[in-house]
Amino acid sequence: MARRRLAIVGGDAAGMSAASSARRRDPELEVVAFERGPYTSYSACGIPYLIGGSVGDAGRLISRSPDGHRANGIDVRTGCEVVAIDLAARTLTARTAAGAESTEPFDELVVATGAEAVTPPIEGAAAIEPARTVDAAERLRAALERGGRAAVVIGGGYIGLEMAEGLTDRGLDVTMIEQADQVMSTLDADMAARVQDAAEAHGIRVLVGARVEEIVRDDAGAPVAVRTARGTFPADHVVVGTGARPAVGVARAAGLEVGDSGALRVDDHQRCPGHDGVFAAGDCAESHHRLLDRPVNIQLGTHANKQGRIAGVNATGGDARFPGVIGTAVSKICRYEVGRTGLSETEAGAAGIAVVSASIEDRTRARYYPGAGPIWVKLVAEPGSGRLLGGQIVGVEGAAKRIDVLATAVWAGLAVDELALLDLSYAPPFSGVYDPLLIAARATAKLT
Amino acid sequence: MARRRLAIVGGDAAGMSAASSARRRDPELEVVAFERGPYTSYSACGIPYLIGGSVGDAGRLISRSPDGHRANGIDVRTGCEVVAIDLAARTLTARTAAGAESTEPFDELVVATGAEAVTPPIEGAAAIEPARTVDAAERLRAALERGGRAAVVIGGGYIGLEMAEGLTDRGLDVTMIEQADQVMSTLDADMAARVQDAAEAHGIRVLVGARVEEIVRDDAGAPVAVRTARGTFPADHVVVGTGARPAVGVARAAGLEVGDSGALRVDDHQRCPGHDGVFAAGDCAESHHRLLDRPVNIQLGTHANKQGRIAGVNATGGDARFPGVIGTAVSKICRYEVGRTGLSETEAGAAGIAVVSASIEDRTRARYYPGAGPIWVKLVAEPGSGRLLGGQIVGVEGAAKRIDVLATAVWAGLAVDELALLDLSYAPPFSGVYDPLLIAARATAKLT
Repeated sequence: MARRRLAIVGGDAAGMSAASSARRRDPELEVVAFERGPYTSYSACGIPYLIGGSVGDAGRLISRSPDGHRANGIDVRTGCEVVAIDLAARTLTARTAAGAESTEPFDELVVATGAEAVTPPIEGAAAIEPARTVDAAERLRAALERGGRAAVVIGGGYIGLEMAEGLTDRGLDVTMIEQADQVMSTLDADMAARVQDAAEAHGIRVLVGARVEEIVRDDAGAPVAVRTARGTFPADHVVVGTGARPAVGVARAAGLEVGDSGALRVDDHQRCPGHDGVFAAGDCAESHHRLLDRPVNIQLGTHANKQGRIAGVNATGGDARFPGVIGTAVSKICRYEVGRTGLSETEAGAAGIAVVSASIEDRTRARYYPGAGPIWVKLVAEPGSGRLLGGQIVGVEGAAKRIDVLATAVWAGLAVDELALLDLSYAPPFSGVYDPLLIAARATAKLT
Repeated sequence: MARRRLAIVGGDAAGMSAASSARRRDPELEVVAFERGPYTSYSACGIPYLIGGSVGDAGRLISRSPDGHRANGIDVRTGCEVVAIDLAARTLTARTAAGAESTEPFDELVVATGAEAVTPPIEGAAAIEPARTVDAAERLRAALERGGRAAVVIGGGYIGLEMAEGLTDRGLDVTMIEQADQVMSTLDADMAARVQDAAEAHGIRVLVGARVEEIVRDDAGAPVAVRTARGTFPADHVVVGTGARPAVGVARAAGLEVGDSGALRVDDHQRCPGHDGVFAAGDCAESHHRLLDRPVNIQLGTHANKQGRIAGVNATGGDARFPGVIGTAVSKICRYEVGRTGLSETEAGAAGIAVVSASIEDRTRARYYPGAGPIWVKLVAEPGSGRLLGGQIVGVEGAAKRIDVLATAVWAGLAVDELALLDLSYAPPFSGVYDPLLIAARATAKLT
């Protein structure tokens, strides 16, 4: 009997997690993974630190190389893009960079094609390569090393902010331009304003509510400036961080269903509905949002890894369930750490969910303990029941990982009055005697 | 009609929290607080940092002075010890340092007498003043400033360790002697060994399983050495940190019930059973342990503040409930942070509770991110259900406050397989793509 064959489309977090878990579970299975680029299993989240210089070598972002995966018995085909999938015939068409095409059979399939940068509708923007992969980041770094004094970052989300920080750390004069009225749209405006403060204190020129009109280039085609209605800013380098959309072109053409989020529909086993043995995972797939009770597309490595592993389990006859997401995220932006989970006030409003919310300011350590600094906590709760629906944290070192406490409380359905008396830890190096989360919970409980 | 009068016995965390919450709730109430020492509302937890020098001024440990409380309308009597309580007559006897006694009436009473150091049965130990209060800490610091090159700390709990670290930071040659076979008895031995490593790497000579036989003094009565069966160690200063027992002498003599833990029995409203209008809170009182389902005495500022506030609410006609404790605690010991919550394997064993447990080692940040260091996580769960019963964490900066995530999960009754897929935050400055807690939960789930 021929060996069964699992094909993986995409060799980053979700795809290689699927490949690895399938490999571990079924030593007889043939596992083949197709990756367009030269690398597998790399940390795209680490790219801003590579740009900023705190990570010196791109190789450090690779958690497992193609050869590492091959040594584990996974047939990795790098530089090899899947351009078509025939679900009925159980074959896919792979194309090398040189243009050679081959038809590859599969029994089970995991689609893990990730996301692709959205090019903003700006004159000159299409020529800018998004630094979303390690090899693209290496090209950007090489360009930065060739010279230039000024950079413009288009987009003020967490990636734009991290990139702006990295460029500033390299000594560049950096302008960040965001079309919305605030940075970091995942936060409410009041919390986002503190993040903007940190970016500005770091030396980044931040423009919000500003639309880029043109990327001005010299005769040789190199960028020299970025023009907005509020001025023209010098730009030897332009970085675009205006978000990404799920890369679903091939999967959609093959007949896999795309949801309202723009990502591939999956059930809680990462199965593509109506297609036995076909799975999707990671940035290209939807996730069930436990609070909104609908599918969303949240592109984060943490989901990609979990979903990939679950797809690999289920593709090999297992029964693993992805329990969904609640929108937890954390970033370090200049001197502040930023965390969020669950619903923001803005998100709740957009979803028609009535909430109460309270914000507090406190210190990260006992007031007398060296290194204490500000922390702001905002909680969002259901009126009446007081059920915690979300939280946002901004503050100095030690602030943001507290978001996981709120994530756990949101997940478990705790009410803010219960949270206010929860047995959290205390010692002077870590908080005042009431942890900021307890103080915020108490303030919120008074409103419910 | 005469004003009602609330008397508070003890002017630190629990007592002054009770006084303050009663004051806020009932502006008509007369609130009088009796405190033996000169200070109110101080952070005993900060004393090791005062000794070590990272906190320069004892005044910084005072969160509110007697005059501060008086300005809020609380009649604070410092230097005034309550030596007897007559519950039938609703009076107490207060004695000043000069020996003057007065009889004070009350309608409601909050007993917040804290805890008192246990003097170990060692020759010469009775002469050592425990540095449990700010004024005692000031005397110790003054003695350290007068000279001496070597110190011995008797007791290897978290306070002993913090004091040993502080003394080392002052340049003293420090030996810490612990009778048990491990430091920090609140941890399992495997985790405690890592804490001992950190103490030793900091330059502290750590002896475990060692019994102090004598504190050797010179002719003038000053300590010169500490003798054990395993050697005699120089000691210009001796610090005793061998634990404290609830200070319940006066309350017990008055007829209040003392539980098996040695602390005052209270119900979930901090009421002393059988005595209307009489409350106890803080280190002198029991707390309900939610996992052991029995009363315990855990002396921590976080409980004292919450219980005091609840006593103050209920003493003024309110209805507040203390939900109990799960044994959460955190400390910074030299280069490591240490957290624990719920049941350790040792505690579960002592309570006859069958558990499974798993330990993992990981890094506090993404491996490529600067400043990443080790973190160890140990989880304890119920076999079968997989319900998380406890956790212990040791690691470098950023490690220990994660204990609050485990505390929340224990509190909410989450199972380890659910925890393993929980939507916790990820970014390279804060963890690998799987937070160490998720990795530990997964390892534990495999055993349940």
